[in-house]
Amino acid sequence: MRGTESGFKKVVIFGTGLIGGSFALALRRAGVVGEVVGFGRSAKTLEQARGLGIIDRIGQDVAIEVANADLILLATPVGQMGELMSRIAPHIGLHALVTDGGSTKGDVVAAAYANLKDKVSRFIPAHPIAGAEQSGALAARADLYVGKKVVITPLPENSKDDILRVRKAWEACGATVSELTARQHDEVFAAVSHLPHLLSFALVHDIAERENRDLLLSFAASGFRDFTRIAASSPEMWRDISLANREALLHEVKRYADELYVIYQALENNDAEKLEEIFSLAREVRGSWTPQ
Amino acid sequence: MRGTESGFKKVVIFGTGLIGGSFALALRRAGVVGEVVGFGRSAKTLEQARGLGIIDRIGQDVAIEVANADLILLATPVGQMGELMSRIAPHIGLHALVTDGGSTKGDVVAAAYANLKDKVSRFIPAHPIAGAEQSGALAARADLYVGKKVVITPLPENSKDDILRVRKAWEACGATVSELTARQHDEVFAAVSHLPHLLSFALVHDIAERENRDLLLSFAASGFRDFTRIAASSPEMWRDISLANREALLHEVKRYADELYVIYQALENNDAEKLEEIFSLAREVRGSWTPQ
Repeated sequence: MRGTESGFKKVVIFGTGLIGGSFALALRRAGVVGEVVGFGRSAKTLEQARGLGIIDRIGQDVAIEVANADLILLATPVGQMGELMSRIAPHIGLHALVTDGGSTKGDVVAAAYANLKDKVSRFIPAHPIAGAEQSGALAARADLYVGKKVVITPLPENSKDDILRVRKAWEACGATVSELTARQHDEVFAAVSHLPHLLSFALVHDIAERENRDLLLSFAASGFRDFTRIAASSPEMWRDISLANREALLHEVKRYADELYVIYQALENNDAEKLEEIFSLAREVRGSWTPQ
Repeated sequence: MRGTESGFKKVVIFGTGLIGGSFALALRRAGVVGEVVGFGRSAKTLEQARGLGIIDRIGQDVAIEVANADLILLATPVGQMGELMSRIAPHIGLHALVTDGGSTKGDVVAAAYANLKDKVSRFIPAHPIAGAEQSGALAARADLYVGKKVVITPLPENSKDDILRVRKAWEACGATVSELTARQHDEVFAAVSHLPHLLSFALVHDIAERENRDLLLSFAASGFRDFTRIAASSPEMWRDISLANREALLHEVKRYADELYVIYQALENNDAEKLEEIFSLAREVRGSWTPQ
């Protein structure tokens, strides 16, 4: 480990699966962490995490481990963060920093104000954009965040130094860090992530309920395959994300339904020009976009 | 070339791009074709096709070349097929077979009845399901159809022997051939191909028209990438397919809008159970489906 100036003597990870485990492995590989202690609800995942060298120890007492931690990562499902925050809040030290790996930020920030109370200034919210078809400690990789984006959504209560320190932790994992407000974050991800997931689930669900679904699926090809890849995502996770980002997502679904109606009308009116105009702009924009 | 029993002495290809060129190359590789003559609107594509060994000769006179052809493939854009059919109809010999590579079948069949007239019995419509991100003679490959599906939609006027012979031609290309009616075909592909394309175009178009589109796209990740891959497809081709399969596609868009409204309501009502139920069925069906 390097000095505490640029590193962390002790990191505590809540949830040692893909997101938390990869964070720990990446910090280790960057040589910026001393000891890593893990907590979690699954004893099996914790044992695996220890066996894989993701964590040094399985934590026993939250109060004790949190008290002298330099950095705490909350990598549990978003729905569990409020309760977890209220458990750790009384024990967070003056120099400890807290960050998280949640896919939505408005709800996590609200939970932080409600549960971290006077320690809320220690919490710099983060969302690592690392697609997770797999999950669990076995899926954790030191390079999961390399070349990926992490969005941090600092609070007015955060100090510049603390924001910088959390930023550097994610950068040490290989990520590029951007800053948005929690509201901006949730609006952006409603449009480019949550809506597409919902649309993909909707298409497959609609087909799944038909009597001739096997016939239909037997002729589905590569376009269908790619369009519906995300419909194989975790139902529980996407239920929670949808509800956590409900307002922004409702707005997006409404917008999309309006867009779809424009296309429906163009088709109904045999408006070839309008259809080509819509498809052309989409092709132009999609064709010149490359994923980060 | 094998004997005429199982092969074709002379094949004429209209449109020597990806679909037509690959058909010619595949028949050659299978050793079931003598001479291949190509026609097309682009002199450059025809020259490339000859240079690449896709065709032996560039045709000069449609009447002469069609008169003694054993097999004729119509691989032009669907919108041009009616006119082409009326040009070749008077010259089609008694033993010549005609097939096509169009993505929609109802409109092609209607064009055949209108333009092939008393030669309509020679036409066995086909749709090779071979995704085409690329196009042109340079993209043609002898193995394009290997392991792919080809749907033929025979007409009541076709003889069993002729259907079998066209089936065997596509099978010689390495494809698995299925039979549907033209109407069934168009309904199936509206659901599993045309609708997803339209939905993908719609999402990108909606984002493309926003002031903050660059910000949005800068945070789009792998889910968005796969969902929108088909939004980079040819606008002209998809305009034509949408209009050609208008009735079935309108029905699908309406169905989908209803499905989306159910999800919108579940979200509006914070109905976690309903959302999870929808996402779970989608995941189950998508997870157990594998593309052919």
